[in-house]
Amino acid sequence: MLINLKVRNLLVAAATLVVLPVAAQQNAPADSTIIRKIYDNALTSYDSYNNLRFLTKNIGGRLAGSPQAAAAVEWSRQVMDTMGLDRVYVQEVMVPHWVRGDKEVGQIYNSKERGAVEVPICALGGSVGTGKQGLSAEVVEVKSFEELEKLGKKNVKGKIVFFNRPFDNTLIYTMDAYSGAVDQRGGGPVAAAKLGAVGVIVRSMASELQDVPHTGGTRYKEDVTKIPAAAISTNGAELLSSLLKNDPKLKFHMRMTCETLPDVKSYNVIGEIKGSEKPDEIIVVGGHLDSWDLAEGAHDDGTGCVQSIEVLRLIKDLGIKPKRTIRAVMFMNEENGLRGGTKYAELAKQNNETHVAAIESDAGGFTPRGFEVEGTDAQLAKVAAWKPLLAPYGLRDFGHGHGGADIGPLKGQKNVTLIGYMPDSQRYFDYHHTPIDVFENVNRREMQLGAAGMASLVYLISQHGL
Amino acid sequence: MLINLKVRNLLVAAATLVVLPVAAQQNAPADSTIIRKIYDNALTSYDSYNNLRFLTKNIGGRLAGSPQAAAAVEWSRQVMDTMGLDRVYVQEVMVPHWVRGDKEVGQIYNSKERGAVEVPICALGGSVGTGKQGLSAEVVEVKSFEELEKLGKKNVKGKIVFFNRPFDNTLIYTMDAYSGAVDQRGGGPVAAAKLGAVGVIVRSMASELQDVPHTGGTRYKEDVTKIPAAAISTNGAELLSSLLKNDPKLKFHMRMTCETLPDVKSYNVIGEIKGSEKPDEIIVVGGHLDSWDLAEGAHDDGTGCVQSIEVLRLIKDLGIKPKRTIRAVMFMNEENGLRGGTKYAELAKQNNETHVAAIESDAGGFTPRGFEVEGTDAQLAKVAAWKPLLAPYGLRDFGHGHGGADIGPLKGQKNVTLIGYMPDSQRYFDYHHTPIDVFENVNRREMQLGAAGMASLVYLISQHGL
Repeated sequence: MLINLKVRNLLVAAATLVVLPVAAQQNAPADSTIIRKIYDNALTSYDSYNNLRFLTKNIGGRLAGSPQAAAAVEWSRQVMDTMGLDRVYVQEVMVPHWVRGDKEVGQIYNSKERGAVEVPICALGGSVGTGKQGLSAEVVEVKSFEELEKLGKKNVKGKIVFFNRPFDNTLIYTMDAYSGAVDQRGGGPVAAAKLGAVGVIVRSMASELQDVPHTGGTRYKEDVTKIPAAAISTNGAELLSSLLKNDPKLKFHMRMTCETLPDVKSYNVIGEIKGSEKPDEIIVVGGHLDSWDLAEGAHDDGTGCVQSIEVLRLIKDLGIKPKRTIRAVMFMNEENGLRGGTKYAELAKQNNETHVAAIESDAGGFTPRGFEVEGTDAQLAKVAAWKPLLAPYGLRDFGHGHGGADIGPLKGQKNVTLIGYMPDSQRYFDYHHTPIDVFENVNRREMQLGAAGMASLVYLISQHGL
Repeated sequence: MLINLKVRNLLVAAATLVVLPVAAQQNAPADSTIIRKIYDNALTSYDSYNNLRFLTKNIGGRLAGSPQAAAAVEWSRQVMDTMGLDRVYVQEVMVPHWVRGDKEVGQIYNSKERGAVEVPICALGGSVGTGKQGLSAEVVEVKSFEELEKLGKKNVKGKIVFFNRPFDNTLIYTMDAYSGAVDQRGGGPVAAAKLGAVGVIVRSMASELQDVPHTGGTRYKEDVTKIPAAAISTNGAELLSSLLKNDPKLKFHMRMTCETLPDVKSYNVIGEIKGSEKPDEIIVVGGHLDSWDLAEGAHDDGTGCVQSIEVLRLIKDLGIKPKRTIRAVMFMNEENGLRGGTKYAELAKQNNETHVAAIESDAGGFTPRGFEVEGTDAQLAKVAAWKPLLAPYGLRDFGHGHGGADIGPLKGQKNVTLIGYMPDSQRYFDYHHTPIDVFENVNRREMQLGAAGMASLVYLISQHGL
C-alpha cells in the first residue's frame, strides 16, 4: 500500500460535532470531547499493555486454586493500590482446585496393536484421571448426542466415545460456532458414561485445523460414573476419524493424572472510584483473573482484566469525577466454577447494593465491534442511544446478546443492565484455552481501543445513568 | 469465556429476509441467497489460504524486476489457468529493477568516536548506495520539512538528516497516521539534499515501538543530488533521538550497497470470466503481485492477490453466470513504480474498454470493515445501497475514500467507480514492508471474509451494474 487519503480524519473530527439524540442530551459536546480524550490517552499509553505483559509472562497460567492464581490476586491488588483509588479490596471465595498432573499422553494403536501414532490431547478441566497405567479402549465416533443415544449401550459399553462435531465455519461470529459445539465438551462425559463408556475424547473447540488441543471445563453428575475426558487437537481429530474409517477396531490409549483436590480460599479483587453525586449507584466493569493452566491467559481473560483496570486509570488520569461509583472487578474462577461471579452477586444482594450496569470483557482483546445487552429492549435502546458518540471509534454493533459469565449472577438484581463488550471474534478460537493464548498474540492498539470503548461507556453511564 | 448465546445466528438469518432498498430491487431474495452461498463456500475453503502459503513461502519477497517477481507472474498465471476461466493472459510492462545488495549496516558512534551501537536500518526502495566504505556524518534531527527549512544549509550541509516524526497514534485508522508521516519517506531525500545533506535516516512508518525497520519507496528529482536514504526501526529512532540530546555531535555510520539496474520486462496477470449479457462492461478486482524484497508480502499484498483470484473461484464454483465481465488483475510494480497499474489503464483506454468498477484490496487480509468509494456522492450512494445485504457479514462502513494505487490510473475513464476494500487497519503497520509481513500473521477466516465480501460486491455489480 503506497498512498492514502486524510478523509477519515475529517470524519472522526466531524463526529465530535455531531448533533446527538436521546441519552446524550444533558451535555453532549462535553461528552464527545471527553470520549476523544479517553481515546487519545488510551492509544498513546503502554500501562495496560505492560500490565498484561506482567500478568501473562511473569505470572502465566493461573487456574483457580493454583499458586499463580494467588499471585494474580496479589498483583492486581498491588496494581490498583498504586492508582489513588478510593477503595481497593478483596472478596473471599472458596474455589475448586483441579490439577492437571503430568503431561497427557494420547496414542492411536491399530487393531493389530502394532505401532502407535501420538496425537495431542489434554485433559478437560475437572476430569478424573486414568490412573498411572492409562486407559486403552476401542473408539466409537459420534457427531451428536442423538447419534450416541441411537448407538446405545451395546455399542458404547467399554469404549471411548469420540465426539467429533466440528465448528460450523459458515457462521460469521465464531462465538456462535462455539455455542454450537461446546455441548460436547460440557455434556459428553455424562452422556457417554450413562451408556457404559470408559472415556471421552472431544474434538477441540477451535475454528481451524491445528495441532494444539484446547482445554476447557467439563461437567459430571454425582449419580453418573465419572470417566476421564480429554480434548484432542482438530488435526488429531481428523486423523483419528480417518483411521477409524479403515480400522474401526483400532485402540486409543489415553493417560492423564489429573485430579481434584480440596477447595482453596481465593479472592475477587475490586478497585473503586466513589461517585460524587450518587455513590450508591454502582457501575461494574470486569473480567476474570483466572485462566486455564495451559495458557498464559492473554485473550482469555488477561485483556479483560487489564482493560477493566485501564478504565479506572483513564477516569483518574483525565480528572473525571464520575457522579456514580465505578468498580473494576477481577472475578476469580470463571473457567471452572464461576464461584467469584456468584459470590460477587451474593454479596451485592446481601449488602443491598444497587448496580446500574455491569460490563464484562471476556471475548478477547481484539478490535472493537460493539456492545451486547443482555436485557430488555428498553435497556438496549438506552445503551444504543450512545452509538453516535461511539461509532466513530469502531463501536457500531449494538444488539441483544450475552453480557458475560461473571456478571451473569447479577441478573435480575434491581434492573441492573448486563452489557458484554464485543470485539471482533475471528481469531478468538485459534487461541482460546491453549498454550498459544499468549501476550504476543495481543495487539496493543486493538486492546486499547477496547479499553477506551469500555471507559467511554462507563463514563456515559456514570454521568447520565441508565 | 465459558458460555454463549445463539442470538446472532438468528440476526444473520433474519438479515437474509430483510426488505431491501434501491439498487437491490431487481431480485433481492436471490441476491441475499447467493451472497450467503458465497460466504458459506469461502469460509469452508482452504484454496485461497493455500495459494497465499505458496506465494509467500515458496516464492517469498518479490520486488518488481526480481526472479521472484517473475516466478509470481508464472505462478498466478498457472493458478488461473487451472480454473476454467474464459481467458487468462498477461500484459507486458517494463519495470524498475532496484536491488538491495548486502544487508545494511547502521551504527551510532559517540562524538569521541569510541564504541558503536548497532541499530536496525534498511535502505529505502530506490535509494542510491553509500559505496562499500559506507558513509559517516553528524546527524541533525527534524520532525518536519518546515523545521528542516529553518535549519537551513549552514546546519544541514555535510550531515545526515534524521526525519523523526512518529505516527499520530491517537488516530483511529492507522492509514491516516501513515498518511501523516509518509511524506518524510517519500520527500525526505530531496528536501535534505537541497540543503547539502549527505544522507537521510527516516523513522520507520510503524504504529508501534519495534526493532524491525520498515522499507518503502522514496523519490529523487533529476536535478537534485541523490543521497542515500534508509529507514530506522522505531526503537532505533527513539535511541538515536535520546543519544542526540546528550551528544549532538555523535556520528552515524550507514553502509548500503543498493543500486538501480536497467528496467526489466514484467507482466500484469489477468484472469477473466466473460459477461453473459454485457461482456463489454468490465468489473476489475485486483491486488498487486509485487512486494518489497525484505517481506514475504503476505498482507501487502499477497492477500489482495489471492482474494482476487478467490473472487473468480467463488463465481465459478457457485455456477454464477455474471451478466458483466469480471477480471481479476494481479498488478505488477505497485511498490516502486506503479508501472503495472499505469499500463493497465493505458491499454484499457487504447482498447476503448468500458470499466464499470474497479475494486482493489491492498490494505491487508484483516477482518472486513467496509468499502471506500473514490468518486462522486452518486457513485458512493449506489455502492452503499447494498449495505443491507453486506452489513450482516461485518461490512458496515461505506464512505468516500481511497480506491487503490493500482486502479488509480483508471480514474476518469468513462465513469468507472473506484472502490477500495477496507479491512480493519489496527495491525497493518506492525507488518507493512517488513520481514514480519509473513503468512503466519494472516488469519484464514479474516482473509476469507474479505474475499467473500469482495465477491459479493463484484456479483452485485455484475448483475445490476453501477
